[in-house]
Amino acid sequence: MASPTERFAPTTIERRELGPHDVLIEIAYAGICHTDVHHARAEFGHTYYPIVPGHEIAGTITAVGGDVTKFTVGDHAGVGCLVDSCRECKVCEAGLESYCRAGKVLTYNGVGRDGNVTLGGYSERVVVDERFAVRVPKSMRLEATAPLMCAGITMYSPLRHWGSGAGRRVAIIGFGGLGHVGLQIAHAMGAHTTVINKTEHQADDARRFGADDFRATGDPRTYEELADSFDLIVSTVPASYDLNIHLNLLAQDGVFVNLGVPEKPLSIEPYSLLTNRRSIAGSMSGGMPETQEMVDFCAEHGIGAQVEIIDAAYIDEAFDRLVASDVRYRFVIDASTFAAE
Amino acid sequence: MASPTERFAPTTIERRELGPHDVLIEIAYAGICHTDVHHARAEFGHTYYPIVPGHEIAGTITAVGGDVTKFTVGDHAGVGCLVDSCRECKVCEAGLESYCRAGKVLTYNGVGRDGNVTLGGYSERVVVDERFAVRVPKSMRLEATAPLMCAGITMYSPLRHWGSGAGRRVAIIGFGGLGHVGLQIAHAMGAHTTVINKTEHQADDARRFGADDFRATGDPRTYEELADSFDLIVSTVPASYDLNIHLNLLAQDGVFVNLGVPEKPLSIEPYSLLTNRRSIAGSMSGGMPETQEMVDFCAEHGIGAQVEIIDAAYIDEAFDRLVASDVRYRFVIDASTFAAE
Repeated sequence: MASPTERFAPTTIERRELGPHDVLIEIAYAGICHTDVHHARAEFGHTYYPIVPGHEIAGTITAVGGDVTKFTVGDHAGVGCLVDSCRECKVCEAGLESYCRAGKVLTYNGVGRDGNVTLGGYSERVVVDERFAVRVPKSMRLEATAPLMCAGITMYSPLRHWGSGAGRRVAIIGFGGLGHVGLQIAHAMGAHTTVINKTEHQADDARRFGADDFRATGDPRTYEELADSFDLIVSTVPASYDLNIHLNLLAQDGVFVNLGVPEKPLSIEPYSLLTNRRSIAGSMSGGMPETQEMVDFCAEHGIGAQVEIIDAAYIDEAFDRLVASDVRYRFVIDASTFAAE
Repeated sequence: MASPTERFAPTTIERRELGPHDVLIEIAYAGICHTDVHHARAEFGHTYYPIVPGHEIAGTITAVGGDVTKFTVGDHAGVGCLVDSCRECKVCEAGLESYCRAGKVLTYNGVGRDGNVTLGGYSERVVVDERFAVRVPKSMRLEATAPLMCAGITMYSPLRHWGSGAGRRVAIIGFGGLGHVGLQIAHAMGAHTTVINKTEHQADDARRFGADDFRATGDPRTYEELADSFDLIVSTVPASYDLNIHLNLLAQDGVFVNLGVPEKPLSIEPYSLLTNRRSIAGSMSGGMPETQEMVDFCAEHGIGAQVEIIDAAYIDEAFDRLVASDVRYRFVIDASTFAAE
């Protein structure tokens, strides 16, 4: 894509020569994350054109550098939001590379150590340092696994960090790409799960993915009946909304995790937090060890995204439908169709 | 005090007959908390007149009910913000009575189980259930201990709950009644302590109370040099201010605890929380077991409030000076002067 207003069009890009720690991945599927739309349309205000989005990548290793230990040719692999970090700071040492402030390199629309702008997964293949690729068991379908590389880890990380096991009551606000994966994860972790969503007609889907309860934001009973009841709420909603009525759903010592980045600041009544000693936290994706753990967890529990597979030529339409929340629940691009264009 | 605009004046009040679990406390000192000013002047909008404020009480047990086990006549005791709670809910069972929503009774301007409005510590004596009084070791000076019953536990509880021990970097914003006690506690717990305060001239005091560092809010270097450095920040500031520049001082997984109740909602940029996976939490005083633990901790470490002892006749002037932040660091009323009036 050459400018914020043009359609996607085929182009030829170069990937770097394989370094000793690099792997070459033949991409099978690339998920479409809402962030792709923001970057492609320059809504975050800092896009390098031409842009190749895509940070939900799943495929097959077709070549490995001389020092690679984690992969051999033929393995399945995934790549998420990051392709590099400083590797030296405290958070990198702790395996929290997604929080690295010294040298994090986004999978696309970032600038790598070599000074080149990074190009993402909407392409036939990618070269990446093995540290930033995760092993994908052969039992997992690649099309359902690709979205786990962003949506999956973005949900798994807060669910694990703030505790989502047996005896815990967990709510997920919003039931789209992130929500439907997070629900499966929270359910598999053993939590009692509630989905709180704008539209009511997804209740059956939610129950199919493991929801113990499903409530509509438009129903006032949601806020009366669920008051003070959740240990953890993870909000996937990217827009501004009334946070305080949702904070009031937290039980004693409950934590509200906000993943979204609405345009306006969050507006929080002090008593919403003082009551029940509540917290609100932010969370950004997860580091590489946790991403591997998430993939292994999803493999063990048969978790994957429900996807609509599209051709490369359909990306622009998919973007429009995504903005209109018209997808059940994640678009993934069949990467073999890039070559056909 | 008979109305929001009148001066305090002597009056005669009745205390209830001693029940089997009650103790009678001859009050020695009553601290003046900023909350007293808000209640007395009806700034919280729900004051019963005539009001007798005071929830920082220290004195001597002069009578005990038949079933009292914790105290004998002659013991020193303290009473804080609460004189009752439902005693049956989950938080009461967990000893977190200050979070009880079913039957918490404030020490003054509350309504007790008998239906009577509670009257606080600006008086000669008080009757209270032994569960809501704490033992005060004789080694502690009562005038320095009275303020611990609110200011002390309000700081101790978050410092302990979110971890303020060795190897932790803790900042306290605001250096008044709460701040100067909290600093001593955090220092005694073993944390590296920083005070962030509006006025610079209290730096020497802060160092005397255990501050490893003291920074002024007016100095831009405060926000450059301390960025990403604290594991825990406890803000005692009751007014609205720029929260985001202070959230940016939190390190990875750092927690910002807000104790104040400004009139406007808190305004928080999403990235202030997403970065470093930060949290902001509320905290309200502490339960009875923790209040006892706090008093014992302060006894062990020689911690007390620095007080200015006043006569009952000076309360109105003290309120005005408190509002103007003109007190180093807590007013306590010599309760023997109530009788003299």
